[in-house]
Amino acid sequence: MSIITLTTDYGWKDHFVGALKGKILSEYPEATIVDLSHDIDPFNTAEASYVIGAGYASFPEGTVHLIGVDAEMNKENRHVAIQWNGHYFVCADNGIMGLVMQKILPEKMVAINIHDRFPGAFTDLDVFVKVACHIAKGGTLNVVGKDITEIKQPTELQPVITADKNSLKGYVVYIDHFGNVVTNISAQMFAETAKGRNYEIILNERGRIGDRGNIRQIRTKYSDIATSNAYPVKNYEGTKLAIFNEAGFLEIAVFRSNPNTVGTASSLLGLGYRDVVTINFINP
Amino acid sequence: MSIITLTTDYGWKDHFVGALKGKILSEYPEATIVDLSHDIDPFNTAEASYVIGAGYASFPEGTVHLIGVDAEMNKENRHVAIQWNGHYFVCADNGIMGLVMQKILPEKMVAINIHDRFPGAFTDLDVFVKVACHIAKGGTLNVVGKDITEIKQPTELQPVITADKNSLKGYVVYIDHFGNVVTNISAQMFAETAKGRNYEIILNERGRIGDRGNIRQIRTKYSDIATSNAYPVKNYEGTKLAIFNEAGFLEIAVFRSNPNTVGTASSLLGLGYRDVVTINFINP
Amino acid sequence: MSIITLTTDYGWKDHFVGALKGKILSEYPEATIVDLSHDIDPFNTAEASYVIGAGYASFPEGTVHLIGVDAEMNKENRHVAIQWNGHYFVCADNGIMGLVMQKILPEKMVAINIHDRFPGAFTDLDVFVKVACHIAKGGTLNVVGKDITEIKQPTELQPVITADKNSLKGYVVYIDHFGNVVTNISAQMFAETAKGRNYEIILNERGRIGDRGNIRQIRTKYSDIATSNAYPVKNYEGTKLAIFNEAGFLEIAVFRSNPNTVGTASSLLGLGYRDVVTINFINP
Repeated sequence: MSIITLTTDYGWKDHFVGALKGKILSEYPEATIVDLSHDIDPFNTAEASYVIGAGYASFPEGTVHLIGVDAEMNKENRHVAIQWNGHYFVCADNGIMGLVMQKILPEKMVAINIHDRFPGAFTDLDVFVKVACHIAKGGTLNVVGKDITEIKQPTELQPVITADKNSLKGYVVYIDHFGNVVTNISAQMFAETAKGRNYEIILNERGRIGDRGNIRQIRTKYSDIATSNAYPVKNYEGTKLAIFNEAGFLEIAVFRSNPNTVGTASSLLGLGYRDVVTINFINP
Repeated sequence: MSIITLTTDYGWKDHFVGALKGKILSEYPEATIVDLSHDIDPFNTAEASYVIGAGYASFPEGTVHLIGVDAEMNKENRHVAIQWNGHYFVCADNGIMGLVMQKILPEKMVAINIHDRFPGAFTDLDVFVKVACHIAKGGTLNVVGKDITEIKQPTELQPVITADKNSLKGYVVYIDHFGNVVTNISAQMFAETAKGRNYEIILNERGRIGDRGNIRQIRTKYSDIATSNAYPVKNYEGTKLAIFNEAGFLEIAVFRSNPNTVGTASSLLGLGYRDVVTINFINP
Repeated sequence: MSIITLTTDYGWKDHFVGALKGKILSEYPEATIVDLSHDIDPFNTAEASYVIGAGYASFPEGTVHLIGVDAEMNKENRHVAIQWNGHYFVCADNGIMGLVMQKILPEKMVAINIHDRFPGAFTDLDVFVKVACHIAKGGTLNVVGKDITEIKQPTELQPVITADKNSLKGYVVYIDHFGNVVTNISAQMFAETAKGRNYEIILNERGRIGDRGNIRQIRTKYSDIATSNAYPVKNYEGTKLAIFNEAGFLEIAVFRSNPNTVGTASSLLGLGYRDVVTINFINP
C-alpha cells in the first residue's frame, strides 16, 4: 500500500494529468497519489532527473515514482522498473534514472514486458499505470519484467576535480522557481575535496548585479547572509549567496529573489543551464 | 462512493480551487477529488468541452464531473446535472455538455432546483458542491432537480464531408501543452469516410517550417515518424506528423516539440484555434 | 484527524510541493492534504494574507493551515502556531497572520520551540510539518511551543473613513486570476458606513476602457450587470462592475474578463496593487 508519485512534462492545462490519475484510481481505488512535478520542460530528461533525485527521498521507503517524460517506447527506449535505495521507479530507459542512480547500486532492475497483455489500443502510460499499481499493491518486479543489468547512462557534464585537488568545477543543472541556480557539486564532493581549506566560488557571471566579489562562504540557510546584527534582515535582500540546498547540492541564490520584481540569481548573475561554477581552494 | 473531478477556469494562484475542495470535504469528508483542469481559458466553454470529453472516460463509471466554467446561473443559463455514458456531470447549461454528448443519448438530465434550500448567501459553486456530493454518495438526480429533455446545443463548427465523399474538412478545437493541434475529426469519422483509400492532409499553414509537403500517413504513436532504422530517433525531432490522439481525434504534432525551445505544431505551422484541416482522399 | 492545507510561494515546477507532501505523509500517512495556493508571489506576505483570509473558512473547523511563505526562522521572524476562529495556522511570525486576524482575537498562540528535537540537518518546513501533523492528529499547541500574547502587526495600508462619514477610501490588496481587483473594503465596513445612502465608487483609473462613469451599484453576482431583459447576457461582456466577492470584500471586475483576450479590470482600468478605490456617499 505504497504512495505513487507522478513526474511528467504534461503541464496542468490539458486533461492528461487528471486522466492519468483516473486510470490509476480505476486500477487501484485506494491509491495515494502525489504530484512531484508536471512542469518538467518538455522532453527534458536532465531536468526530470534533477527533480526526481531531489524529491524522492522525502517520501517513505517503498514509494513508487512514475515518470512520464519522454516515455514513448521506441526502437531506442524500452520501459523499465527499478528498485533503488528503497524506492521504486517506473519510466522509459532514456537516461533519467542513469543520472539519478550514479552513486548507489540498484537493488533490482527489469525491462517491462507486459505490453502484449493489453487488449486493444493502449498508451505507454497505460503500461506505467499497470506496473506502478502492481508494485504499490506489493507486487514484485519479476511479474512485470525480466531482469536487466544495465540502463542508459547520462550524457550530462559531470563535475571535475583538478589533478592537484585545488579546484572543483561543476555545472548548472537546474534553475528553480525562485531563479536559484543549482549545480551538480554535492556537499559530499565539496567536503572530500575541501578538507577544511578556505575557498572562493568563481561564477561565470554575465549579469548586472553590483557585488562582483567572489563568494567565500557557503551558508547553512539563506538568512545567514544577514551577518550583522546592526542591520535588519531586509537590508540584505538582493545579495548573492551560496548554500547547499535541501537536496545536497551547491546552489547560488540571491536573497529573497523574485523573478517578477527584483530578479534572481539566474537573471541577475546571468547564470544559465550548463554554465560553469568553479570552487578554488586556498592552501594554507 | 464515487470520485469527484473538477474542471474550472479558476487557475491555481487564488484560493478558489482550494476553497472548492474545502467545501466538498466539509460536505463529504471521505471524498476522492481529482483535478481534471483548472487552466481552462476563462469562460471558454469550447475548451472546457474538449478537456471534459477527452478526460472523463479515464475515470471509473459513476464518477461525478463538476465543471466550474461560466457557471453563474442567469436568465440564460440554468444549472443542470446529467447522467451520460455511465458518468455524471454537474454544470451550467451553457453548451459545454451539448458538445460533449453529441453522439450518445443521455441516460437522464435534470435542471437543478435546490437553490432555495440554502440558508443565507451562497454561490453557484455551493450548489454544484451540494449536488456533486449528493450524487457521489449514491443519491439520485430526482432529489436535486426536475427532469428535462433538452440542453443547449453547441455553436462550434462541425466537421464536414463533401457530397462526393472525397474530402473531409475539420477544424482546430484545442491546442495542448506541447503545442499539438487537435482537430474535431474523429478516428471513427475518418475510417468511415476513408474506406481504406489513400489520402493527404492539407494544413492551412502560415508557418515557417521547412517540410511543406502534405502529410500522407496518420501514425499510431509519435515515435513512428522515425521510419528509418538507419537514423537515430533524435534525427526526426522537429518533423511534423499526424496521429489520432488518445482521445480519438486527429492531431497535428511536431515530433518532440517544446514551446520554450524548438517550437510546436501550433507555432511552427501557424495553426490556431478554428483553423481548417482538410483530408483529401485519393480514389484508386 | 483534521485536514492540512498548504499555502506557499514554491510554484509547481520544482519538487518542493511534492516533497512537502511526502514529508507530511511520512509523518502522518492518513493525512488529507489540500493545496490552497502555491503561486503566492515570492516572499509576498500581503498576498499570502489575502489568500489565507479568503480561503480558510471554506474548510471544516479544526483544519490546520500550513503557510510556507517567507518561512525561514531568523533573528526577526520566529515560528508560530495559532488557534484562531476555530482553525489552526502554522507559519513564521512575519505579519501574515497579523493581517488575517485583525477583527477577531486568537484563541491561543505559541512560539514553536521544538527545533532542538530534530536530529541532524532539518529545514524550516520540517518543523512546520512536525507541528502541523501533531495538531492535525489532535495534539495540543502546548506540546510544541510556549504561549505568546503578541504577533507582528501588518504594515499594509488600512481603509479610512472620513470624519464626516461621507467617504470611505480603500486600497487594492489583490488581483485575481481573472484580473479582478480586490480591495480591503469589507461588506461589513461598507454597510456600517453607508447606512442605506446612495453612493458612487471612484476608481483611480489609468485605463483605456470606454465607460468612464462611476459605478453606482454593488452587485450581488456578476451576471446582475445584465440588467435589461431586452439584450442577451453576452452584450454585457467587457462592462465594469462592482461586487462583494465571496470573501466579503469589494471587488472591481469586468464582466467575463479574460487576461489573454478581452482584458481585465486590472488591465483595462489600469488598477494595480495598492491603488486607491473611494466610495463617496450621497446624503439625501
